[in-house]
Amino acid sequence: MAEFNMVRAIERTRQGEPLGAATVGALVSGFTRGDIAEYQTAAWLMAVLWRGLAPDDLTALTMAMARSGDTLDLSVIGRPVVDKHSTGGVGDKTTLVVAPIVAACGVPVAKMSGRGLGHTGGTVDKLESIPGFDPDLTVARFMAVLRRCDLVISGQSADLAPADGKLYALRDVTGTVPSIPLIASSIMSKKLAIGADAILLDVKVGRGAFMQTMPEVMELARTMVRIGTDAGKRTVAVISDMGRPLGRAVGNALEVIEAIDTLRGGGPDDLRTLALHEAALLLVMAGKAPDEETGGRMAARAIASGAAFAKFAEVVAAQGGDRRAVEDPTLLPHAPTVTTVRAPESGYIADIEPLAIGRAAMRLGAGRERKGDSIDPAVGIMLRATVGDRIEQDAPLLDIHARDAAHAERVRAEALAGYRFSANPVTASPLIKETVTAPA
Amino acid sequence: MAEFNMVRAIERTRQGEPLGAATVGALVSGFTRGDIAEYQTAAWLMAVLWRGLAPDDLTALTMAMARSGDTLDLSVIGRPVVDKHSTGGVGDKTTLVVAPIVAACGVPVAKMSGRGLGHTGGTVDKLESIPGFDPDLTVARFMAVLRRCDLVISGQSADLAPADGKLYALRDVTGTVPSIPLIASSIMSKKLAIGADAILLDVKVGRGAFMQTMPEVMELARTMVRIGTDAGKRTVAVISDMGRPLGRAVGNALEVIEAIDTLRGGGPDDLRTLALHEAALLLVMAGKAPDEETGGRMAARAIASGAAFAKFAEVVAAQGGDRRAVEDPTLLPHAPTVTTVRAPESGYIADIEPLAIGRAAMRLGAGRERKGDSIDPAVGIMLRATVGDRIEQDAPLLDIHARDAAHAERVRAEALAGYRFSANPVTASPLIKETVTAPA
Repeated sequence: MAEFNMVRAIERTRQGEPLGAATVGALVSGFTRGDIAEYQTAAWLMAVLWRGLAPDDLTALTMAMARSGDTLDLSVIGRPVVDKHSTGGVGDKTTLVVAPIVAACGVPVAKMSGRGLGHTGGTVDKLESIPGFDPDLTVARFMAVLRRCDLVISGQSADLAPADGKLYALRDVTGTVPSIPLIASSIMSKKLAIGADAILLDVKVGRGAFMQTMPEVMELARTMVRIGTDAGKRTVAVISDMGRPLGRAVGNALEVIEAIDTLRGGGPDDLRTLALHEAALLLVMAGKAPDEETGGRMAARAIASGAAFAKFAEVVAAQGGDRRAVEDPTLLPHAPTVTTVRAPESGYIADIEPLAIGRAAMRLGAGRERKGDSIDPAVGIMLRATVGDRIEQDAPLLDIHARDAAHAERVRAEALAGYRFSANPVTASPLIKETVTAPA
Repeated sequence: MAEFNMVRAIERTRQGEPLGAATVGALVSGFTRGDIAEYQTAAWLMAVLWRGLAPDDLTALTMAMARSGDTLDLSVIGRPVVDKHSTGGVGDKTTLVVAPIVAACGVPVAKMSGRGLGHTGGTVDKLESIPGFDPDLTVARFMAVLRRCDLVISGQSADLAPADGKLYALRDVTGTVPSIPLIASSIMSKKLAIGADAILLDVKVGRGAFMQTMPEVMELARTMVRIGTDAGKRTVAVISDMGRPLGRAVGNALEVIEAIDTLRGGGPDDLRTLALHEAALLLVMAGKAPDEETGGRMAARAIASGAAFAKFAEVVAAQGGDRRAVEDPTLLPHAPTVTTVRAPESGYIADIEPLAIGRAAMRLGAGRERKGDSIDPAVGIMLRATVGDRIEQDAPLLDIHARDAAHAERVRAEALAGYRFSANPVTASPLIKETVTAPA
């Protein structure tokens, strides 16, 4: 290639011209090594936010970030390995249900997950509410657990796609976060570094999600699917509703309990529906099921037979967690006080604003306001009824699990403010809005 | 004002929202002091290139840059002081003619000029071809010469609008130079720091200029006029043609000689026309002439009476230059060899590409390829005929003034390549294209 010239690269991107994979690769490695000035990268990022990136350049950017640190070689597993990612939302514990189901069906699931920032914890924060559970695995241990259990759920290695981390830190202080190509590339770089053969993306849409509107969410989903496909991975995105909390539990141990209920055949309808749909898709993507309907039946059977629950208990134990706490969730951390909030009026629940519930849970200690904040695994909110349910005045509406009554009082109004009631019956909007696959 | 938040400022500009003067001021002073990271400023600059800046923000930016270092107090002169700026072009020695005319008519002219980068030297480089001339004046000396002569032509103080210098250096390495608001602001910040009451801008358009097309030049001119007017200065822009070299001389001493010829009532038509037009405008702007026609007559009289030439000789002497060299230009540096290039065919000269002549002159040593390159004052190119002239094959077309014959040979083809001949008579395009004044 011609000698790399960063000013020329900025100018080309600024003019909407493609850079070519070699130039993008030089840009990422130069930035990662510190050979390119941060002010140049910052100007380039703003130009990307303005003009976007050519599809091939975006794939090249993502692959270069993926290769900037550790990458796993999952081919040693000998079978297609799958990965599942959610853009996150209030009460989203789907991974804790989907992953054991799929693994119980014989499809290995390799999952690395970042810590949560915001209303509730991430997948790893939730699992840490199980006494002894260790999410901080070395690569060797990650591979060993995956081999043994066909399932591993780990925190993210510090050296996973470090270029992405460095780039994100710069975006954060230069007003260049809200670029769909850069968001897509950031997510997919970590997926590509882990190296699963099939990647299912759960892209949340609505008030409780990172993105609120269908057009931008569809663009993000299509962009990620295209990157994954171009990088040689089977990639599918499910767009699911985050206009209300998912399930009834919001808070780390509370969500683990709800996931366990679901793996045992109970749990709330919406969570079960979404988990079975995603599990079915993954079984098809891994070549285990010929079609979604069959995949859905396999997934339901894995729950009914107890295999999915057993798989969850197995992986928790393999990662040092207390298996008894999985089998008897009363052994999980419990909040000292539970305050029941009653319905202020009779009617149908027309709306539960997810951020009102999420923020209330965060203020109880279930989430992080700032990076590095510690999380209280026991606290959170349990919804006693959900959107569409009929409720009478003074009937229990939600439970606040708090450190003490004062904490509970502090968030009661905030949580309640998220509710709207209606005299007439209300139908909740559909949970699964769209499935995005690569164009044929 | 609310506490300054640079990320918020970047986001607002990225979204096309105004910042307000207080925020712009905090941004400029934070950047100048080094309190704002360069990567943040770089992202902001790209956002400005993308979205532009609200008019009030742009004026605030320009005024903040103007106030970032030394500013002159010209009110002590007691009369309106004028300034004149050219965006630069091949053979542009207009300032050397206009300034003495206007000063000879009793209007003080305070001119600070940067060094040239590119085909030929800047105004200061040209004047330095006069033995002894000192362009590096302290502020005290600048004011003293201005008081004594009603005219001073100085190099730019190192501490004139340092924020502009620092910002330009960052733009240069971040692909954020070609933004009309930023270009306008950069030019005007230096004019406002000097502080003249009236500012005439000669904005060149065409192949030999910084900008090639009328729409972008008009936008630049209107933007600068608006900034100047908003800052309380009478500001007018003349758009003049740089589709061909201005005058016949390209090279530092050669251009001084041509300026002297023009001040003595000779000189090429185009240079004289442009200089009289600009002088007339300045006399009106300073309130010395009631209208342009009267101003034009005053300017012509200043030449005819010898007052303009005497003023030039006076200021050269006041700045340490050898007055005899002005009165007898044979005492100015002369190149050791003059090589005459003859017309390769008979016909009308249809085109002289200004950059072909400019680059040839630069390669002879008349201009700088890189910042800091030294300049040979004597070398350059003299056109013997110009666009529209009839010329016979083998008649003298141009003279190359060079260090030696080898240097002349090296640029002969390049200079000749700029010419096109036509069998039919050719009319040159109008020199003065537009005059831009502030909207009433």
